[in-house]
Amino acid sequence: METFVLILDLIGTFAFALSGATLGVRRRLDIFGVLVLSFAAALAGGMTRDVLIGATPVVAISDWRYPATTLVAGVVTFFWAPLIERLQFPVRLFDAMGLALFAVAGTEKALSFGIAPPMAAALGMLAGIGGGIARDVLVARVPLVLQAELYAIAALAGAAVVAIGHWLALPPLPCALAGAGLCFGLRVMAMHFGWHLPVALQGNSDDPPAPDGPPR
Amino acid sequence: METFVLILDLIGTFAFALSGATLGVRRRLDIFGVLVLSFAAALAGGMTRDVLIGATPVVAISDWRYPATTLVAGVVTFFWAPLIERLQFPVRLFDAMGLALFAVAGTEKALSFGIAPPMAAALGMLAGIGGGIARDVLVARVPLVLQAELYAIAALAGAAVVAIGHWLALPPLPCALAGAGLCFGLRVMAMHFGWHLPVALQGNSDDPPAPDGPPR
Amino acid sequence: METFVLILDLIGTFAFALSGATLGVRRRLDIFGVLVLSFAAALAGGMTRDVLIGATPVVAISDWRYPATTLVAGVVTFFWAPLIERLQFPVRLFDAMGLALFAVAGTEKALSFGIAPPMAAALGMLAGIGGGIARDVLVARVPLVLQAELYAIAALAGAAVVAIGHWLALPPLPCALAGAGLCFGLRVMAMHFGWHLPVALQGNSDDPPAPDGPPR
Repeated sequence: METFVLILDLIGTFAFALSGATLGVRRRLDIFGVLVLSFAAALAGGMTRDVLIGATPVVAISDWRYPATTLVAGVVTFFWAPLIERLQFPVRLFDAMGLALFAVAGTEKALSFGIAPPMAAALGMLAGIGGGIARDVLVARVPLVLQAELYAIAALAGAAVVAIGHWLALPPLPCALAGAGLCFGLRVMAMHFGWHLPVALQGNSDDPPAPDGPPR
Repeated sequence: METFVLILDLIGTFAFALSGATLGVRRRLDIFGVLVLSFAAALAGGMTRDVLIGATPVVAISDWRYPATTLVAGVVTFFWAPLIERLQFPVRLFDAMGLALFAVAGTEKALSFGIAPPMAAALGMLAGIGGGIARDVLVARVPLVLQAELYAIAALAGAAVVAIGHWLALPPLPCALAGAGLCFGLRVMAMHFGWHLPVALQGNSDDPPAPDGPPR
Repeated sequence: METFVLILDLIGTFAFALSGATLGVRRRLDIFGVLVLSFAAALAGGMTRDVLIGATPVVAISDWRYPATTLVAGVVTFFWAPLIERLQFPVRLFDAMGLALFAVAGTEKALSFGIAPPMAAALGMLAGIGGGIARDVLVARVPLVLQAELYAIAALAGAAVVAIGHWLALPPLPCALAGAGLCFGLRVMAMHFGWHLPVALQGNSDDPPAPDGPPR
């Protein structure tokens, strides 16, 4: 069972790493830059979660299998980038699986460190989406997860199932499966139907420097 | 007294969160993106302070009232953005109050963890300005606090009063009040008179890639 | 001996801080922004390393000599920026020395916290390059170290010598000297001969929003 979860976790890591490496190749980074984006996209979320709850050294540096997986994903993408681009559909399915696993496992880890359920769910979501944010900040673009598609909410829904189950003292395994299933299902449906979150109607996109100075 | 400080602290958190959410709406992020910016603008400074001194789990995830406050601020801004934009003046006053409180409280927390007074003052300043830096990095713009107005220096001045008072073993409460008052006063005067810090005269703003490679 | 290493370390910190401050002046940040970039460029790498392995409070805030050094570098650059720009060659030599020292010392610190040798080498590299990444993210540009020259690999090579030496239980001092020498030598040769890492041939630099949504 544990081996099974580890394998799923590494597949999710691999899929996240592919997304980082692909962006690195598109932005014409050198091979080292591609590897850094691959590592950041896969592991920055979990590292942030571990740092915030005080679980140091963080798992991404204490278990060599995670960085090694991102290294392989980075090298594969560097040499076969057109192939990876053509495999978008399976890569996105694996990515949704990784999101589900990271959200559920991240929530469970936070709960085991005594974090209250609502914040544990938020940390689980962060473990799922933090990598994508780090990846995008590193190439100086606004993180996709803040502006596109239903991605973070799927992670939050899955994490919430685990947190609520813990709060109600339900058995962990069925909660984890239900949470992962809900996250994966929401994400796949969002991809299929193109679901988006609303944008505020009233915003004006110019964002001029306010005449009387910055907003704060 | 403690309740009073908590209420002030939450008002400051609310004002900071408004600044993040307002920027998110302007940049046309979806509602989740607006909430993330709201959270980051209000709490990233304190989270960074806590992580650097080893106070984990950080207060932003161990006390639910802070994230809940940012959530409310984000939702309010998302639905009533034009109203918030019109209320710039009171929002900026509350923001100055939040800056003063964060700087003073951040310094005191660092001192209580045994950090030397000069670095404790720097950490207090960081608690005050770190949120604004995270907010701006997330939308890929150069942080306003690095280039505009007298903002960080006001925080540093307030933090320094607390740190010096601690070093001279003066009673903490009057020092905290004096520090918060100095920070708030400086910030309000800077807004009113448009005070800026100097920019180096000699700089050339082109920033070409140096012919013989990057600066390092 | 210890004093000697400390002096070298502070010279490296000073050189890194100059690179941050120079960028700040070029981007027309105010003096506070210049000082923040100076601090971040010199110390963000070591701070990240310390946070990830749980060595808090991080050394950059527990030892005043490091922040004080970056402060001096920032002020010097702010007032004499054209002079610093003209001194590019010695600054870059000192920078290569700083890189070598940070990589070696970072690896040794991670090893002393019980991190496995391969990850310790990665953390040593991170201590060397993390400052440059933070510096570039703060001015919203893609980090140079991800796209130009042979910089990170030099740090990794030096760090690897230390990590392998530790794994083989060789005496630490010769390993540290060999690692620092290798890093410094590689970096200087890369500057002299203009060595670069390869970029993936197949990449397309347009980076259009993929028709079916973001890569993840």
